Formats: sequence, C-alpha cells, structure tokens
Amino acid sequence: MINRLVENIRKKKAPIVVGLDPMLSYVPEFILDRAVKEHGETLEAAGAAVWEYNKGIVDAVCDEIPAVKPQIAMYEQFGLPGMQAFQKTVDYCREKGLIVIGDVKRGDIGSTSAAYANGHLGSVQVGGTKCYAFNEDFITVNPYLGSDGVSPFVDVCREEKKGIFVLVKTSNPSSGEFQDQKVDGRPLYEIVGEHVARWGADCMGDSYSYVGAVVGATYPEMGRILRKIMPKTYILVPGYGAQGGTAADLKPYFNEDGLGAIVNSSRGIICAYKQDKYAGFGESGYAEAARQAVLDMKEDINRIF
Amino acid sequence: MINRLVENIRKKKAPIVVGLDPMLSYVPEFILDRAVKEHGETLEAAGAAVWEYNKGIVDAVCDEIPAVKPQIAMYEQFGLPGMQAFQKTVDYCREKGLIVIGDVKRGDIGSTSAAYANGHLGSVQVGGTKCYAFNEDFITVNPYLGSDGVSPFVDVCREEKKGIFVLVKTSNPSSGEFQDQKVDGRPLYEIVGEHVARWGADCMGDSYSYVGAVVGATYPEMGRILRKIMPKTYILVPGYGAQGGTAADLKPYFNEDGLGAIVNSSRGIICAYKQDKYAGFGESGYAEAARQAVLDMKEDINRIF
Repeated sequence: MINRLVENIRKKKAPIVVGLDPMLSYVPEFILDRAVKEHGETLEAAGAAVWEYNKGIVDAVCDEIPAVKPQIAMYEQFGLPGMQAFQKTVDYCREKGLIVIGDVKRGDIGSTSAAYANGHLGSVQVGGTKCYAFNEDFITVNPYLGSDGVSPFVDVCREEKKGIFVLVKTSNPSSGEFQDQKVDGRPLYEIVGEHVARWGADCMGDSYSYVGAVVGATYPEMGRILRKIMPKTYILVPGYGAQGGTAADLKPYFNEDGLGAIVNSSRGIICAYKQDKYAGFGESGYAEAARQAVLDMKEDINRIF
Repeated sequence: MINRLVENIRKKKAPIVVGLDPMLSYVPEFILDRAVKEHGETLEAAGAAVWEYNKGIVDAVCDEIPAVKPQIAMYEQFGLPGMQAFQKTVDYCREKGLIVIGDVKRGDIGSTSAAYANGHLGSVQVGGTKCYAFNEDFITVNPYLGSDGVSPFVDVCREEKKGIFVLVKTSNPSSGEFQDQKVDGRPLYEIVGEHVARWGADCMGDSYSYVGAVVGATYPEMGRILRKIMPKTYILVPGYGAQGGTAADLKPYFNEDGLGAIVNSSRGIICAYKQDKYAGFGESGYAEAARQAVLDMKEDINRIF
C-alpha cells in the first residue's frame, strides 16, 4: 500500500491528502434540510447529510488527489448512523481509486490493539469465513502504550500490505506538554521517532516503510530533525492552512527525492466555500470550491520543489 | 456520575468493574452457532453472538457489581454490526443501573476531541434537537496530545456530570518505553499524573473528581506514588488476574477510606467457564460461572481492607 501511495502521489503530482472531517456546521444548509426532511432531527439525518456532503466533494476532487483522510471522530459523534456514513465514505473513496487513511488514532495493548488492527486494516474470522470490517488502507496510531501496543498493528500491516502513521509530534499548541519533555537531554518525540524507524525497518515497501509517522506542519524545526531520524518513514503532515502551517514550513518534511511526506488539509478544502476567496462558488458550489482549493494547494506546495 | 460510581461501589461492597471484552473465541459455541444459522458467517453473526453472550453475563452479575467496562475495540473489529452490539450493551447495562465505562482510549486535538467527547459522553445538536449517540457514563482517554486534547473531554464531563479516566501508567509490559522515561529525574507518568490532578481539580464530585486515571495493577510501587500525586482522583486499575496483578498488589491504589480505586477484570470473569476452577459450570453455564468468579473476586479484593 505504501508503494501505491507513492505511485498515486507521483501520478497526480500531489503530495497532499484531503481530510474528510465533516463538522455539521460545514454542511451546506440545502443538504442538511433535505436530510432532516427525510429523517427528522435525528442522528440518521446527520449521518445522511454528512455522507451526501462527502460524496459531492469526493466526486469533485478525486482525479486531482492521491488520498483522503476521514477523521473518524467526526462520524463517531453521530453514533451508529455516523459510523455508517464513515463506512460508506471509506468504501466509496476506495472504489474511486483513492488511498484511504483512517484518522482513528487508536492504540491499546496486545489483543486489544490486534482487534483495532483487524477491524480497520485486516479481517476477522467468523466460522470459516474471513470478514473485512472498516477496511481502510492506512490508519493513524497512538504510541503512548509502547511497542506491545503498536506491534499488533505492524503485524497486520505486514500481512495485509497496509500501513500506519504513528503519532510522533502533533500539530496542536500543547503537544509539547508531554511530547517535548526532555529525556537525557533529548525530547520524547525523538525517542518515539527512533522507535518508529525501528518498527518500520522490517516492513519495507520499495523505498519507504509501511510504518509512517505523524509530524505537525506547525513545528518545522522538529520536522527537520525527525526527517533525519526516520529517513525511510513517510510523514503525514497535519496543520497546513487553517492551523497555521505554510508551504515554506513544509520543505524539511520532504526528502531530496521530493517524496517522503504527504500534507493534509481538511477545513481549508472541504469548507473552502465559506472562505472569502471562494465565496463566488456559493453554497451550492461547495464541491467546486473544494476542487479549486485543491488546485491552489497543489500549486502552493509544488512551489517548494 | 463520580458520586453515583462511589455510591454504587459502597452499596455493592465491590470496588470492581467487569470488562465486557468479548473475543469471539470466548463466546460459547451454542451461541455462535445460533447466530451463524440466522446470519451466515458474517459480521452480523459476530455482532449478534457477542450481544447475546454479553446479555447473559450482565443478567447474571448485575446485582453484584457497580459497573462494567466494555472495550470498544472488541466490538469495532466487527464493523457496523459490532458497533451496534456495543450500543446495545451500553444501553442495556445503563437500564440495569450499572455505570458504564467505555474503554475507548480516544484522544485527539481541539474540535476532534470535542467530537469524541460529544459522541461518547455528551450530545450533538441536529437542527433544534439534542441527540445522544453512544452515551456512556465514563470513558478512557489517551493524554499523549496534551491539555488541549484532554480539555474538551473535561468540558463535556462538567456539563453532563460524567467522567473520564486518563491513561497514566498502563498495565502492559512495554508501557515503560515512553511512560517511564525520566524527565528531570522523574518518570513521565508522574508528570502526566500531576496534570490529571490539575485537570480534575475544578471538576469535583463530593469527594472525588470527575477526572480519573488508569494505573495498571502490575506496577504497585508506581501505584503508591501516583496515589499520593492524585489524592482526589479515582484510579481505574486494569491488569488484575489474567495479566498477573494480585489482590495484595492492589492496596496502594486505595485511599484510607477504602475508596479511590476500582479494579477491572475481563477475561477472568467473562471467560471463567474456560478455567479449570469453574469448569463444572460447563459451556451452557458460562453466565453462572461469571457470577461465581465475580463473588470470588469480591472476596479476594475485600480481604485487603
């Protein structure tokens, strides 16, 4: 899957991923109204609205991008109907040839991590039949519980040729509270980065590992150091755009080959129609606005090479 | 909710919680066969089997225990039908008067953490209507992303009078890899523990905070120190029984008042019928075996007071 991700990025000339993180406040009123008319003011309406909204965006941008990253929290908040919208979104994006990175940030121990890994990347056995559940291509993983929490994910990646991105240094303001704590003079995120490189070493694609890392765009100096600590690790970079990261900040995350990083934008794309710059598209043109925002983001990011 | 938890623990004389973590291999064959007959070898069959298995156990033990802790990974692995079994389990246990601790270990940043908090503890607004999704009483939270990842959960707890248990020191063998790293001579879990005490300080029930902590039974010395760092924090203690923690190990987690900790057992209860000790109950007596294991666990733990 890491090979397919690299190939998709090259083909589309786009080291970017669109975050499908649908807050209900992003969904155009005409879509929500239609859903409420059908389902009442219920979680079912929210799920239906979110799915329709996503489908519009995916149809408009899928030929320009290699991957999407649905943030499962935005679906989980709507309970079962939300999870159904998540499943439909994953399935639809895969049908469209997009790589799906489930932003689930799961992490537990032993058999529990294995259950998450099976549910999101692998399969479960029911009687004699192998059944796939959510079936994303990649997921994000939280490393706080250590190697025996992460290794069940790595095992499933190896078996299914799928991938994970492990949280190393996140983009939020208080990420430093624990991640930057100095251990023998070095910040914890460097220690985590070294583990990521080690976990990924025996699970390599052609040039990059199945085990990637998350490093926020808002900390380019740390990105530079982590790039060196994890040379074969694909870096998923959140925090571009709405969170304050700029294209100039992104250079250190890439290798000399122009690969090695994939930059996420969520709000900046899927809610572009609410920005002054794209207001001309109007609410009914929300999907076209998203497409234009993708084209602009590609131009902006490709400028650094 | 922390007051209700304490009250339930006192009333049942049981500082214990039963982990509803149904691996398919735990489910008696007659239950799985029935489900497969109805649904084929599908995720639907797995979800139906898990729900029936849970219901049997809950019916058998609910008068003896204050709380249950369903591990969501064990449901999530079965996709949407699994999540449906999770929802049914949560709803049923709450109807039975049990406190439900959703072991979800979620954690993200800002609006994403808020979405998890709303979906599991609070509500979402659809039009003019407040809709509740999974609606557990407590959930577990991963702190790796720092205060701005945790505070949205605390906000919802305050509003809804619910609670969280933040991972501080987990019970697994490699938990030390990051959690024990020395920061200015002190392990990271102590720093996290201090944050937990601080996050919980302005969100107090009668004697304990809405913000609890997870500290594994397998590290009693660390439990003793963390008990002092977080005197008003309820500690959820995994790792008793199957993972190796004994009753003697548990004393340091409690305060002088005999409160302040709640000990989890999962496999040891729900899969008791597979142990030699309870083999007499047979497969069809799996629920009665679970009840007996609960009674034995209560006796074992109450011995330390």
